[in-house]
Amino acid sequence: MTVATDEFGLIRDYFSDIGSDSTGSVRLSVGDDCAVIAPPSNRDMVVSIDTMVEGTHFPVGTPGDRVASRLLGAALSDLAAMAATPAFFTLAVTLPDTNAIWLRAFSTRLAELARLYGVQLVGGDTTRGPLTLSIQVHGWTVPDKALLRSGARPGDRIFVTGTLGDSRGGLETLLKDIHGEQVPFLQHRFFCPEPRLDTALLIAPFATAAIDISDGLLADLNHILDASQVGAMLNPDELPVSDELYHWVGEEQSRQWALTGGEDFELCFTVPALLEPKLAWALRDHSVAVTCIGQISATPGIFLAEDGQIWPVAPQGYNHFSDKGSA
Amino acid sequence: MTVATDEFGLIRDYFSDIGSDSTGSVRLSVGDDCAVIAPPSNRDMVVSIDTMVEGTHFPVGTPGDRVASRLLGAALSDLAAMAATPAFFTLAVTLPDTNAIWLRAFSTRLAELARLYGVQLVGGDTTRGPLTLSIQVHGWTVPDKALLRSGARPGDRIFVTGTLGDSRGGLETLLKDIHGEQVPFLQHRFFCPEPRLDTALLIAPFATAAIDISDGLLADLNHILDASQVGAMLNPDELPVSDELYHWVGEEQSRQWALTGGEDFELCFTVPALLEPKLAWALRDHSVAVTCIGQISATPGIFLAEDGQIWPVAPQGYNHFSDKGSA
Repeated sequence: MTVATDEFGLIRDYFSDIGSDSTGSVRLSVGDDCAVIAPPSNRDMVVSIDTMVEGTHFPVGTPGDRVASRLLGAALSDLAAMAATPAFFTLAVTLPDTNAIWLRAFSTRLAELARLYGVQLVGGDTTRGPLTLSIQVHGWTVPDKALLRSGARPGDRIFVTGTLGDSRGGLETLLKDIHGEQVPFLQHRFFCPEPRLDTALLIAPFATAAIDISDGLLADLNHILDASQVGAMLNPDELPVSDELYHWVGEEQSRQWALTGGEDFELCFTVPALLEPKLAWALRDHSVAVTCIGQISATPGIFLAEDGQIWPVAPQGYNHFSDKGSA
Repeated sequence: MTVATDEFGLIRDYFSDIGSDSTGSVRLSVGDDCAVIAPPSNRDMVVSIDTMVEGTHFPVGTPGDRVASRLLGAALSDLAAMAATPAFFTLAVTLPDTNAIWLRAFSTRLAELARLYGVQLVGGDTTRGPLTLSIQVHGWTVPDKALLRSGARPGDRIFVTGTLGDSRGGLETLLKDIHGEQVPFLQHRFFCPEPRLDTALLIAPFATAAIDISDGLLADLNHILDASQVGAMLNPDELPVSDELYHWVGEEQSRQWALTGGEDFELCFTVPALLEPKLAWALRDHSVAVTCIGQISATPGIFLAEDGQIWPVAPQGYNHFSDKGSA
């Protein structure tokens, strides 16, 4: 097999036909100085760029298919946080060498997921250097309807999708080379984040603020609180934790990772209490769990309510669940 | 001085207020999960992503201001090649450490140039790893009026802007640590490419195809030829070479670098012979030189006409100017 070693050959062999634009806005894709996009009438565009570096964001030696699913899933999660419809993306790949097996696994999985999510690769750059991938995703929203971080109000209920802490658990099993019954599930959660795009469209009519959980629940909720100039009271008993994580590390550790473990790529969002019944109705047939974990307060800061007491917690400083009050 | 070491601090300290969107389309900039853009009515968007890696695209230890001018200049050159009006950009920066002097020089120069060219930084990502920068630039064109590579026709005249080979000369002076009268000019051409945005808008009504010269004149002209399914005849005597380059390396070497030295970020474009007078009139008060260097032919391939003879030349294989016919 002849493997292309130049930039044009790499693009032709691996990146020339990835995904499709479900919104029909791509006029000209890979192959000219720029891609050309015809924005749909009466739509705003939302854009987000993310970088992943080998050894920082995924372990050295991670197979190409796992890097592809993590990269695209995490990036599209930012579009979900804005309640946008994905349309197209660009990709800058820096490679130390031309490893045909890695590249084929990467581009094959990227193409599968791009088709699944209805996004088309319209442009990119391939360069030589330490393995680094930058992806920019683009989506469309109704003008002025993008879901921001800044709209939470006192009394709003705080919700999260799915379960939290799994990705952190998966990373631990990788770093410590742990094997066992729960490991495949947890590693899948680390490598294959599912952007909550459908859920986002269902909650958007009711939500006042939203973010995707990339830095950890406390840190990301704090971004909402900062942008909205409010505080939050959380009920740790309500944190959604998977059976797999619970059985592997127990209640205390799973709660800690649910609060601070990053890269779950679930959504955290707020809804006025009065709209909670409508939210429940909108989600009645939806397959992704949505859990109320607390509510917005006027008092700045994040507080945990537990055993009839209230403890303040630092967004990034939640180091151990039993260190109540010391964070 | 306190230097931020976390991602949010870096963005706040160095990247929170860079440039301005001369087209008024930015609804929401840095600070949420995505930036929000309101596309102007009746405009197509063009996008291009470029990566630069320390040690590959610029020498290790290059100061931040020089990296900034090279990065933004080269990226905007892709918008010039489409005859687009620049609007906004995103930036993904991977840094080995938090070097405040380097970062301040980088962000200050980036802000200066972003204001000059009327582009706003709307989003980004900062990660830890080997120094790598990915920039995506976005511009607007009249629908179906983006200048492509695919429209050149036999008989069209081939033009280039500015002078060629200077950037390659500048790189040589860096790599070989050469000093002398011509060095500042040549290194400036390497580190501070000037995107030919204004020239592009002047030539767009007449041009049938265009590209910016990043890989070298022969390689990039060949992209036009491939896309347009035509060939080209060049007159080496007409290649525009700067006095500085000519005086430093002489006729033969300067011609070779003009043909194959990359990263001049000048434009190469084609215009029907009948429109040449109109082109000349449109450029009558323009400060950037535009030179006719040959014409498009129906015969595939690139040929050089010299001393009454015609020599074929390989797009990438032009290794020595005197190796006539052997390339």
